[in-house]
Amino acid sequence: MPELRKDIITGRWVIISTDRAHRPSDFLRQSVEIRGVGVCPFCPGGEARTPPEVLAYGRNGGTPNTAGWSVRVVPNKFPALGIEGTLDRQGEGIFDKMNGIGAHEVIVETPNHQGSLAAMDEHSVEEVLWAYRDRILDLKRDRRFRYILIFKNHGEAAGATIEHTHSQLIALPIVPKRVREEVDNSKKYFGEKERCIFCDILRQEKESGVRVIAENEDCISFSPYAPRFPFETWLLPKRHGSAFEDAQPGLYKSSAALLRDVLRRMDVVLERPAYNYVIHTSPVGEEANDHYHWHIEMMPRLTKVAGFEWGTDFYLNPTPPEEAARFLREAAVRAS
Amino acid sequence: MPELRKDIITGRWVIISTDRAHRPSDFLRQSVEIRGVGVCPFCPGGEARTPPEVLAYGRNGGTPNTAGWSVRVVPNKFPALGIEGTLDRQGEGIFDKMNGIGAHEVIVETPNHQGSLAAMDEHSVEEVLWAYRDRILDLKRDRRFRYILIFKNHGEAAGATIEHTHSQLIALPIVPKRVREEVDNSKKYFGEKERCIFCDILRQEKESGVRVIAENEDCISFSPYAPRFPFETWLLPKRHGSAFEDAQPGLYKSSAALLRDVLRRMDVVLERPAYNYVIHTSPVGEEANDHYHWHIEMMPRLTKVAGFEWGTDFYLNPTPPEEAARFLREAAVRAS
Repeated sequence: MPELRKDIITGRWVIISTDRAHRPSDFLRQSVEIRGVGVCPFCPGGEARTPPEVLAYGRNGGTPNTAGWSVRVVPNKFPALGIEGTLDRQGEGIFDKMNGIGAHEVIVETPNHQGSLAAMDEHSVEEVLWAYRDRILDLKRDRRFRYILIFKNHGEAAGATIEHTHSQLIALPIVPKRVREEVDNSKKYFGEKERCIFCDILRQEKESGVRVIAENEDCISFSPYAPRFPFETWLLPKRHGSAFEDAQPGLYKSSAALLRDVLRRMDVVLERPAYNYVIHTSPVGEEANDHYHWHIEMMPRLTKVAGFEWGTDFYLNPTPPEEAARFLREAAVRAS
Repeated sequence: MPELRKDIITGRWVIISTDRAHRPSDFLRQSVEIRGVGVCPFCPGGEARTPPEVLAYGRNGGTPNTAGWSVRVVPNKFPALGIEGTLDRQGEGIFDKMNGIGAHEVIVETPNHQGSLAAMDEHSVEEVLWAYRDRILDLKRDRRFRYILIFKNHGEAAGATIEHTHSQLIALPIVPKRVREEVDNSKKYFGEKERCIFCDILRQEKESGVRVIAENEDCISFSPYAPRFPFETWLLPKRHGSAFEDAQPGLYKSSAALLRDVLRRMDVVLERPAYNYVIHTSPVGEEANDHYHWHIEMMPRLTKVAGFEWGTDFYLNPTPPEEAARFLREAAVRAS
């Protein structure tokens, strides 16, 4: 008999199939292939093919927009939002709108066209997290922005249009609904219990252990109790922290190590799947709080989502998270 | 400059591209093709290949589970939920779960394997809506269920696995999150204003006219102000009605006529796209109310959804609804 489970943070119920649970081999797996260079705007030497960089590591004082960088951040050439102008909020009868002010940037994670976060060394992954942090801190000084969203589309099936490994940043004058909901519900929980809901989840997951995938001194990764998608995976700092960009410096190192470890496990178990991840952190101006706990949500793209999910926010997950966690936990991954 | 627009019912903000608006021809259109019969479990003569029917129209007293029907409803052979058993709600530490009790049925809309709602005559589409109603009324007598969800996946890209045109019904012991949210927010709006939010939207849409696609005496169809997807389309009764299954009999005829008309327009403008629709109606036990207004949400599948939307509930829509509505409004569709 399948199970209905409730996501404690958002209140969403999902159906977890237990009868005919999908193992990794049951999914039509399309491995992400890196086909080759062609004319890649993200490769060293192609710096002129992107808008001028806003951040680069590793060049050690060399000329901007030339080769020699290890991580490079540039504005998106086809931004979803425009950076210039004054934010203009308006009503339109009973409706609300504003002009599309925002920033849209690309974080090129490595100069190596064949690279991926799973294949890079730990230090290089850590640099990517530092780049996220630096860009968030810079953009937060712009008073028009309410949220800085970091996400990654890996592989064509996950929405990537350029194969050279990269993440994206969108600075928004509003807070995305899902984040607003998580923050508000966490706040309500804290109001009732004087405890962070994520800290509570983390404690229970550690105690039961059945959904834990991997951990190190500072961070833990597990399958959430009521995931919408097979092999959905979360990564959290173990000690309460409300804002990604305000973490203790050592935490970027630990987070990078665990993130890389989990992505390597996914590569083994799911044969280099396309995936997305999103960093959920506190909105701008609400950074220091006791109720929200930043985390990374990873979603490999294994199933074709039947569109009705869009109309209902209701999901059928063919793989129990305990099964997914076991496969990932037992994956034969070398430490380096 | 793009625009940020807020969906008044859910509070979700979306980015509407206005600079490089996508016209219908800009989408990679994959027309839904009906390839042929093979062994189709939904064709007349194949009645023994499905579980025994729970409803059939048109056979006029003939033997159940034989040919001669015009609409036929059967339990799903591979149901997402099980119909047998007592609902057992449990806690699991801080989490909540229940066993997967529910019903999962298939509404075969026509005996014609080559048929589709857009190509069928009005009366046949009306019969499909009556079948939805009859099944909802029957299942509502089961006290375990809180919501009866009607939806349709048309075409492989929309999640259909059998090509013979059909809809689905899932009876649930919980209310799907999106519906709960809409009902609660509508209730709050009514509490503040003593008006139905959908009736207010409807009035504004009729007055401005820019997003209206088509209407008849009882129903109207328009592009919502802040749609997540290009060519997303809603269909509502003009007079307040909170539950689809409690509509005046004449309304099924009008709704069917307009639903068919809108699907025909989509077929012309978007070249027979894959699509989903979902009926949003009041939860079981809350049917008679002043705040919620049943409606159908239709979503043609034109864009590949980059997975990060799942992590944010944040959307970039490349086609302003005013453009989408104009294309559909001006589509050359014959009345019959």
